Amino acid sequence: MSEAPYRALSVDSLPQRLGATLRDRLGSPPESWRVREVGDGNLNLVFIVEGEQGGVVVKQALPYVRLVGESWPLPLKRSFFEYNALTRQAARDPGRVPAVFHFDEAQALVVMEYLSPHKILRRDLEAGVKHDGLAGQLGNFLARTLFRGSDLSMKTPERKADVALFSDNVALCDITEQLVFTDPYYAAAMNRHTSPQLDAIAAELRADVDLKVAAQQLKLKYCNHAETLLHGDLHTGSIMAHDGDARVIDPEFASYGPFGFDVGMLIANFLMAYFAQSGHERAPGERDDFRLWTLDVAEGVWTRFRDEFSHLWRTERTGILFPAALYEEQGHGLAAEQALAGLLQDIWVDALGFAGVEMHRRILGLAHIAEFEHIEDTDRRAACEAKALRLGRWLAVNRGRVLGFADVRAVAVRLETEAGG
Amino acid sequence: MSEAPYRALSVDSLPQRLGATLRDRLGSPPESWRVREVGDGNLNLVFIVEGEQGGVVVKQALPYVRLVGESWPLPLKRSFFEYNALTRQAARDPGRVPAVFHFDEAQALVVMEYLSPHKILRRDLEAGVKHDGLAGQLGNFLARTLFRGSDLSMKTPERKADVALFSDNVALCDITEQLVFTDPYYAAAMNRHTSPQLDAIAAELRADVDLKVAAQQLKLKYCNHAETLLHGDLHTGSIMAHDGDARVIDPEFASYGPFGFDVGMLIANFLMAYFAQSGHERAPGERDDFRLWTLDVAEGVWTRFRDEFSHLWRTERTGILFPAALYEEQGHGLAAEQALAGLLQDIWVDALGFAGVEMHRRILGLAHIAEFEHIEDTDRRAACEAKALRLGRWLAVNRGRVLGFADVRAVAVRLETEAGG
Repeated sequence: MSEAPYRALSVDSLPQRLGATLRDRLGSPPESWRVREVGDGNLNLVFIVEGEQGGVVVKQALPYVRLVGESWPLPLKRSFFEYNALTRQAARDPGRVPAVFHFDEAQALVVMEYLSPHKILRRDLEAGVKHDGLAGQLGNFLARTLFRGSDLSMKTPERKADVALFSDNVALCDITEQLVFTDPYYAAAMNRHTSPQLDAIAAELRADVDLKVAAQQLKLKYCNHAETLLHGDLHTGSIMAHDGDARVIDPEFASYGPFGFDVGMLIANFLMAYFAQSGHERAPGERDDFRLWTLDVAEGVWTRFRDEFSHLWRTERTGILFPAALYEEQGHGLAAEQALAGLLQDIWVDALGFAGVEMHRRILGLAHIAEFEHIEDTDRRAACEAKALRLGRWLAVNRGRVLGFADVRAVAVRLETEAGG
Repeated sequence: MSEAPYRALSVDSLPQRLGATLRDRLGSPPESWRVREVGDGNLNLVFIVEGEQGGVVVKQALPYVRLVGESWPLPLKRSFFEYNALTRQAARDPGRVPAVFHFDEAQALVVMEYLSPHKILRRDLEAGVKHDGLAGQLGNFLARTLFRGSDLSMKTPERKADVALFSDNVALCDITEQLVFTDPYYAAAMNRHTSPQLDAIAAELRADVDLKVAAQQLKLKYCNHAETLLHGDLHTGSIMAHDGDARVIDPEFASYGPFGFDVGMLIANFLMAYFAQSGHERAPGERDDFRLWTLDVAEGVWTRFRDEFSHLWRTERTGILFPAALYEEQGHGLAAEQALAGLLQDIWVDALGFAGVEMHRRILGLAHIAEFEHIEDTDRRAACEAKALRLGRWLAVNRGRVLGFADVRAVAVRLETEAGG
């Protein structure tokens, strides 16, 4: 099949085209498979294929952005980057991403583990459903993939070759470069926001010089600081969860970038979930417990990331950066601890900045989030969104002067309670 | 010739092997050419070939480090990176690098302009010979190559492809990673220093936790912060000068890295020349005027870099970073100025740090500089070197708290005069 030119799959053609590849795994004749197309994302075709012995997911890239149509072409090669990211993540944090069963570069498709009955985490954040163990699993995933994908761990020739490989993921980086860091901060054509309620604050933020400088300083880091292999799109719609098992999916935006990027993006999404709760309460206070849980998860992601990253620093620092030859082996173990603290401080500051711009682009830019979008009363929705915008501004501009998560929590709670949400 | 396997050139074989390529340019039969091998660097063969109508330089890589021998292999591909860097630098700052006439990848050779009667700048810094216009030309070279090789200027898909191309320059980056940032800070096998005079200060610096943390923080930036295409080895032995014309040669260490790297390396070499003068004076004070000139050049390189970089920022900012669409076009021109000041501040801090480690590795590491090495009296030499080591430590550790070049000058002068040099 690799020899054939690319053709998009359909529910009807899939059994015939993937019959030989999947028959053994699914355990029944292709014509008997149950095939559903379930892609609800913005970019790709996603099929669930089930036979007698089980199911798989078939994800195939389309040569354009599904959400927009053929007028916005997008390279099929993103499937290659997703495959390469999934295999690296699986090696670095085993069990946290879906297993890959088959990759066909020409057809831009990946066959992978069907996670069932897992659900997209974002839906449960909207519904007010908690998950145990989430912060620990996600914090560990961040620490393990980011540490083990860097010059702190890898052999440098392999890392440099990998930088070259992922440098070609131009089109998806371009989406982030434009939609996250630039478009939200002026009246770009694809932007939208809850209007007219947010018109004034949108104008205020777009006239905020300090914020517009901060956003581009963060963009420089995203574009140029190739510190480690990022997931690149780690929001709560890229996480599936069920019964204490969280899985990370959809790394097609993978590129080398700064340690703080994935960390900040993910934390931002829990902070937005926090502010969205009041839009879904039937009575004020109904979601108080769940609301605080979203902050606990945000804090837990950071503390677990920090602790696991520190553990890996102390036990697996085999790369060319901060070598033990210079510290521990010279009797200067505290030098290694001093360097770790400095690096974690830099990651913390960057993560807060990325969290801030993520919150802005989800409210002022093109791609919004369900927790806000599904609040039908636009006054209520705008009230939630405005608090998130305020916190985002505080994070992005003030990022170098935030001592710890307690500060973030205090500002979030103050915004939530002062506004009477 | 590209089809033939690699063979090292010799004075005898060169006319026959390059006859067809160079005959028109040199204007006389190959058998009449005057050929000299003049490579005094550490890595390559360098021939000057002269015919009736003029001369060329033929630089050919050897498959090992010339200084050490076949026991230290080094990829021929460094010639490819040198060629690619030379052509980019020529486009970004026309006239400042030797013109390239011919490149043969299989033979790892570049035929280029013969700069005559230019001399290696480092020799004149040792001899006490000034050059007019040096700071201006070098500062402009830094600003133009670094600005125009970044996401401030380039089309991002081209820059990402270029990052991939230069990512393969692993072996030469490895030399810098090891010899500049790590080896000087512990008793590595290839290190040497003026002994026993510098034994105590070498031990002191190698026990200096803050310094050893700073050196590796700077290494992380060098390894991972792909902000622009660097020359990668911009010391005063990579500059030729004559009668108001400075030329930059030997960019085989080219890689993507932080804006401040070339700037800091170059400034460090003028600061070391400052401290070397007292080792070459026949009587104290003889070189007072020249000594101050080396500081003036160091300062001038920075101020010209800053001014030209600022000019390009205001007139050529066509890349994806800090776009005019977000600033000037919104009536927020001062936001662009605020962002420029922030970036220049970051570059300044990084440059000071890189200057500090460059001064250390030239005295405690493998590759030393002629201005110090040629001071035969080892007590005198060590006195000069110790001052440079002290300034290097101050720069590397204190880099975030240096307001401007006046601070650097004051510390340098104080070290020079307190020690009675």
